[in-house]
Amino acid sequence: MVDSPAHLVERLLSQRVTLLLKDARQLSGKLLGVDEHMNLVLEDADETTADVSRHLGRVVLRGSNVVTLYSSQAPVAKSG
Amino acid sequence: MVDSPAHLVERLLSQRVTLLLKDARQLSGKLLGVDEHMNLVLEDADETTADVSRHLGRVVLRGSNVVTLYSSQAPVAKSG
Amino acid sequence: MVDSPAHLVERLLSQRVTLLLKDARQLSGKLLGVDEHMNLVLEDADETTADVSRHLGRVVLRGSNVVTLYSSQAPVAKSG
Amino acid sequence: MVDSPAHLVERLLSQRVTLLLKDARQLSGKLLGVDEHMNLVLEDADETTADVSRHLGRVVLRGSNVVTLYSSQAPVAKSG
Amino acid sequence: MVDSPAHLVERLLSQRVTLLLKDARQLSGKLLGVDEHMNLVLEDADETTADVSRHLGRVVLRGSNVVTLYSSQAPVAKSG
Amino acid sequence: MVDSPAHLVERLLSQRVTLLLKDARQLSGKLLGVDEHMNLVLEDADETTADVSRHLGRVVLRGSNVVTLYSSQAPVAKSG
Amino acid sequence: MVDSPAHLVERLLSQRVTLLLKDARQLSGKLLGVDEHMNLVLEDADETTADVSRHLGRVVLRGSNVVTLYSSQAPVAKSG
Repeated sequence: MVDSPAHLVERLLSQRVTLLLKDARQLSGKLLGVDEHMNLVLEDADETTADVSRHLGRVVLRGSNVVTLYSSQAPVAKSG
Repeated sequence: MVDSPAHLVERLLSQRVTLLLKDARQLSGKLLGVDEHMNLVLEDADETTADVSRHLGRVVLRGSNVVTLYSSQAPVAKSG
Repeated sequence: MVDSPAHLVERLLSQRVTLLLKDARQLSGKLLGVDEHMNLVLEDADETTADVSRHLGRVVLRGSNVVTLYSSQAPVAKSG
Repeated sequence: MVDSPAHLVERLLSQRVTLLLKDARQLSGKLLGVDEHMNLVLEDADETTADVSRHLGRVVLRGSNVVTLYSSQAPVAKSG
Repeated sequence: MVDSPAHLVERLLSQRVTLLLKDARQLSGKLLGVDEHMNLVLEDADETTADVSRHLGRVVLRGSNVVTLYSSQAPVAKSG
Repeated sequence: MVDSPAHLVERLLSQRVTLLLKDARQLSGKLLGVDEHMNLVLEDADETTADVSRHLGRVVLRGSNVVTLYSSQAPVAKSG
Repeated sequence: MVDSPAHLVERLLSQRVTLLLKDARQLSGKLLGVDEHMNLVLEDADETTADVSRHLGRVVLRGSNVVTLYSSQAPVAKSG
């Protein structure tokens, strides 16, 4: 049942993910790539702030800005 | 009675934990994984801010955002 | 379908890109160079803040200030 | 009379300590463990902010948040 | 047409450059030196803040404070 | 007349020193120890903020919080 | 005409320098020492904030707080 952070990020490749950033901005898009600094590539990305949402297309995100990353799919029911 | 930070985090695997983050956000969920940077994987995670709580499902959290991590279980009585 | 952050940045060389910085400033220009710290060279760069926009010419940007980088072209339609 | 920071922290193991954190939060608890990053394990920990105090039980604290650490015992008289 | 950040900085040696810093301060001066941390030496430097401008003479600037660096000359016309 | 930062800190061992921290807090105490990260041990330490002063006893201070460190003795007259 | 940051700092040894710090504080004093992190020793140092100025004597300054360092002498006329 144990799962490393790097493995989970890799399993999310090709799926839509949502990212919360340190400046409270939120990004979502299809996860196309990742490196060892958690720099990410998103395709078809949308950026959402408190005020406004906009479409950015393909985006490189520097990993140092990431707080959390999770699948944009509806979460599955608890299986604990 | 001595216990290293890494050992305690490993012993918390598969248990529900609560995390306080640098931006005052709080996350709780079942701890599924951890790496040497204290990047974490939580399952069935909930995020709580001053205003609102929401369910995120499975989450990767970058360790650099963590202030404290503790078991979400009721603390045991002092044994000191 | 997987694409590393470094490869995407290299593929964007000679194209116009837009950068969002940590201080909320935005830069756009033709991407002329990049190094392993994501320090960047932009040609014919414009800087935009909430208040004002100005032309800077050729610019070196320290990578540690970058949040996101994306092509300034109109995003392509979803191909997911 | 010279005493390295690491030695003092080790001598405080099994004693109650108080920590001031960068976000002005204060933690106190029995010091169970420490590593080379000054990540700490506290048992029977209490967290105090300007507004409120709460009991957290056993806590892992990331060292990068620490400002000062000191024994919660009454300080001894000056021997200088 | 590709140009690394380090090469552009070196080509700017002996020219007047303008620097935007993280604290929104702006420095301009003749670029006399640079090292691998982007620490810089400026000669005949002027510092400008929102409020005031002052002459500093020869200045060492720590690279970690730099956001952008560009030539103070009028930018050339686009050649793209 | 040249004096490295590490040597001056060592010469201050067993003397009372004053530290200004990044959060504007001030600490003073007898300097008992130091390591290569400028982590410090103070004995008989007092902490002073804008509002209040309190006695902390023996304290470990993480070096990353330090701005300046100086002898609490009255400064000697200029000898330049 | 090229001059590295480290060489300029060394040439300023034994001279009075002024430092602007990240917290907007200003320090000036005779530069007695420096190391590879740009940690500095100042003699006969004065600290100036927006509100007040005070004499500190001999001071160790952690390099990570430095924005700019320059000679306190009147700048020489341009020789470019």
